[in-house]
Amino acid sequence: MDNRILDQLSIESDSKIVFLIMDGLGGLAADGKDGTELQVARTPNLDALAKESACGLLDPILPGVTPGSGPAHFALFGYDPVEFNIGRGVLSAAGVEFDLTDRDLAARVNFCTLDGNGNVTDRRAGRIPTEKNAQLCRKILDSIRVPEGYEFFFLPEKEHRAVFILRGDGLEDALSDTDPQQTGVPPLPVRALKPEAQRTADLVNNLVDQIRKILKDEHPANMVLLRGFAKHRSYPSMKERFKLNCLAIANYPMYRGVARLLGMTLHPVTADVPSQFEALEKNFSKYDFFFLHVKYTDSRGEDGDFDGKVKVIEEVDRLIPRVVRLNPEVLVVTGDHSTPSSMRAHSWHPVPVLLRAKTARVDRVERFDEISCIAGGLGRQPAMNLMGLALAHAGRLIKFGA
Amino acid sequence: MDNRILDQLSIESDSKIVFLIMDGLGGLAADGKDGTELQVARTPNLDALAKESACGLLDPILPGVTPGSGPAHFALFGYDPVEFNIGRGVLSAAGVEFDLTDRDLAARVNFCTLDGNGNVTDRRAGRIPTEKNAQLCRKILDSIRVPEGYEFFFLPEKEHRAVFILRGDGLEDALSDTDPQQTGVPPLPVRALKPEAQRTADLVNNLVDQIRKILKDEHPANMVLLRGFAKHRSYPSMKERFKLNCLAIANYPMYRGVARLLGMTLHPVTADVPSQFEALEKNFSKYDFFFLHVKYTDSRGEDGDFDGKVKVIEEVDRLIPRVVRLNPEVLVVTGDHSTPSSMRAHSWHPVPVLLRAKTARVDRVERFDEISCIAGGLGRQPAMNLMGLALAHAGRLIKFGA
Repeated sequence: MDNRILDQLSIESDSKIVFLIMDGLGGLAADGKDGTELQVARTPNLDALAKESACGLLDPILPGVTPGSGPAHFALFGYDPVEFNIGRGVLSAAGVEFDLTDRDLAARVNFCTLDGNGNVTDRRAGRIPTEKNAQLCRKILDSIRVPEGYEFFFLPEKEHRAVFILRGDGLEDALSDTDPQQTGVPPLPVRALKPEAQRTADLVNNLVDQIRKILKDEHPANMVLLRGFAKHRSYPSMKERFKLNCLAIANYPMYRGVARLLGMTLHPVTADVPSQFEALEKNFSKYDFFFLHVKYTDSRGEDGDFDGKVKVIEEVDRLIPRVVRLNPEVLVVTGDHSTPSSMRAHSWHPVPVLLRAKTARVDRVERFDEISCIAGGLGRQPAMNLMGLALAHAGRLIKFGA
Repeated sequence: MDNRILDQLSIESDSKIVFLIMDGLGGLAADGKDGTELQVARTPNLDALAKESACGLLDPILPGVTPGSGPAHFALFGYDPVEFNIGRGVLSAAGVEFDLTDRDLAARVNFCTLDGNGNVTDRRAGRIPTEKNAQLCRKILDSIRVPEGYEFFFLPEKEHRAVFILRGDGLEDALSDTDPQQTGVPPLPVRALKPEAQRTADLVNNLVDQIRKILKDEHPANMVLLRGFAKHRSYPSMKERFKLNCLAIANYPMYRGVARLLGMTLHPVTADVPSQFEALEKNFSKYDFFFLHVKYTDSRGEDGDFDGKVKVIEEVDRLIPRVVRLNPEVLVVTGDHSTPSSMRAHSWHPVPVLLRAKTARVDRVERFDEISCIAGGLGRQPAMNLMGLALAHAGRLIKFGA
């Protein structure tokens, strides 16, 4: 896929685009349920929107491919999710609003629990509170000895998650994870995945050994697991590509990280979903593009909580009139991927989408759900095609060719 | 199109995938008929499957492009049909289970009939029996003089078809066909399509001249026509790419050839279609992926025999319960392309597809035919997307990205 011609066709405009992204929105029918989560939910406002929109289904990456949240969001924002696939470490660093440089190597950290034999007993250290996490990060930074010529950062993310950043010349990210992805075994040493990365592997292993000693008397978080080593590279921003001033109204570090990497302004974290809609209202005159991210559809899906996911959808449905009242030139409602509660995980199934705009070619879809949207006028598309449609309906793309 | 990320995401599993491919399945409504061949056929079992599946339509290559059977099958198996387009010669050689090396140049042969003026009167020599074909191949091999440093093979395929293989260093396949594709004109000499191929062209023309002399007193097969010159190259197997142990249950050389090139095990040729289903049952525990190929839908389509094609579809429908009883994790029913009997030829029309799996998002399609499947949840897809979907529904793909 290549949509780079959009960059040359994009123009400035006063028009507004709102992307309301319900994480993991797509679902499946489950035993004893009368359809998918979206079909079962009472969604009069979303259904009314669907009736006056063009609807369809989006494949996040390729049919059959289950995406992580990073690539799924890149695709929604019009970035090739394979070309722009970035390591977890970089996403995590961006999520805690750390300014990465091109000399930085980042990894996602889990605090974990080891038993007396050095085997992992809990890969998340009982999900320690964020305050404890911050305290441990400070302890590590106070005691660690970093080799001459390098800088080291260790930043709390949320609960048991943190970010490891090593800054210096010539660092490589072809490194294996230390997270064994199971309990009952010890953490793995970092291995160089190509010869040039050996020096970096040695440096990281030395730092991890020091951290083990620093944490040895802590409980339950007496060790760390590292994964997703990645070096930073810079991305063309949405401002550069599409001439959009963007505001991200997202409360979870991961999504804030993606938004930051693409040059969006980050709204401060808000208390709940209604506050996110309030933030949209208050800032509506100041930006062109709004990314409003609702996390809990995905969370309840991953919990296997069908009814809980239905409730989140219904809560968002009740807030829909607030965004409709703002009357953006383009309103898109969709998800980044499916998280069927029957699977308790992300899945590859396509995600329903609606696009409301004065220029939308309204189809016959009357309900906003996975099955009704099959008959929609947008058809089944790669998610990456969405941004071009949004820009066009916002009057932000000039004609291609004479 | 590029689906190479599937290769990195594929994992081993105990799950089973069955591809039931009815060759040339798609059709068109014909004069005096109440719909397409699939619509007219009584298919209670396929319709029942459609009701519990995700359905859609597959474009073999690109909308509007009519495929040969080779590229159409490559696409179904997840191989880019343009990138992996291979010469007819290589397919024919693979079809007769000849082990090609990288020094081999292969061409598809038709025995043909020339009149006294040297003009072609029958491009298929009256479809001579396979036994006669084998006898002529032996006669050629017994008498031909092959230049020093080269080896020559001439193998019977079926009826009037054979395979020409020249082995040696520095052979090139940029060669024109000798088949004039019409009667009333003489066979063409082989021409080099680039200067480096001149020496190979001379070698081939010399061999063809010898064959003309060897066959001159035969009737009706007194000459050969060569087409599809191709050098062998190796392909990543389905085992390498998708971690699938594959069994091909196909009775025609061409399809056995494709399967062989992709590393599938070839089941011995069976007597009829029911025996193919029996072979599936007997081997179900031993492989991960099953390619069951039914030829006769295409044959009757090429004959222009609407009712005959309907009968073949109905015969397969009666066998469906046998594969359903095996309950593979993923069951796909589709064709490689359309062969409308009203056109008596392959066509570009998309082919209906159904995918049955526990994780399928069941849509509202109630009948398995070209028109009903338009409303299916799989939408209209390049055929090449099918393999990713099959792997996903079989639990054989890990998540892409963090």
